[in-house]
Amino acid sequence: MEEQERGGQSDPTAEFVTSVFARDCTSRAAFEDVTGKWASLALIALADGTYRFGELRRRVDGVSEKMLSQALQSLERDGMLTRTVVTAIPPRVHYDLTPLGEQVAVHLRLLADVLEVAADDIGQARAEFGQRTT
Amino acid sequence: MEEQERGGQSDPTAEFVTSVFARDCTSRAAFEDVTGKWASLALIALADGTYRFGELRRRVDGVSEKMLSQALQSLERDGMLTRTVVTAIPPRVHYDLTPLGEQVAVHLRLLADVLEVAADDIGQARAEFGQRTT
Repeated sequence: MEEQERGGQSDPTAEFVTSVFARDCTSRAAFEDVTGKWASLALIALADGTYRFGELRRRVDGVSEKMLSQALQSLERDGMLTRTVVTAIPPRVHYDLTPLGEQVAVHLRLLADVLEVAADDIGQARAEFGQRTT
Repeated sequence: MEEQERGGQSDPTAEFVTSVFARDCTSRAAFEDVTGKWASLALIALADGTYRFGELRRRVDGVSEKMLSQALQSLERDGMLTRTVVTAIPPRVHYDLTPLGEQVAVHLRLLADVLEVAADDIGQARAEFGQRTT
């Protein structure tokens, strides 16, 4: 899990460090989970507050029930959200971010803001790339 | 591409807005590109400066040549990085972030920081989840 410094040698006396660049590191696995196609959007949505499953599915345009369910389970497993079952008829399930999930969601939201603002520029870059490569 | 407000009705007079939640929006496609498994790590690496392909491949532990090449091409297409070919024998190729790529990389780096710091907590959450669900 220890990452070798760029261009340097790894120091055997160095403290154990985590790194998203190291393939076996927990932080790398969690990074993949929270940046997953549907998990990332679910985290951004949940930053606004509690959601029930169906509400979340409507918010995250295009996700299937199965894919959303898998994404939420991976986020629950990593401690990013809690899943609460309210015993009623029919039972209700809702999801809330944990403090860690909130920290993660903040950065995903800021990332999304950058891309939403830059959408026109990105469209332009894509058009130019298409012309260069055809 | 217009996103309906949560719980409300879409306003037909509203200005055209981009949203990562809308499945056909450029920002959503770009969000998927930059949060891709290998693209995200390449962006974080390139925030440190210019990289040649081979250097980048060593830094992003576990990536194949093909996968890295695809990730870099999607990032070039979205205007996140430039690819420069230096005509020499053999020719050299290096990659640099654009200003937009730098903005995106900042948020990915901060996200990675959160997860690296929380790695132990995430490991603990996973162990507890495993006990609850078995």
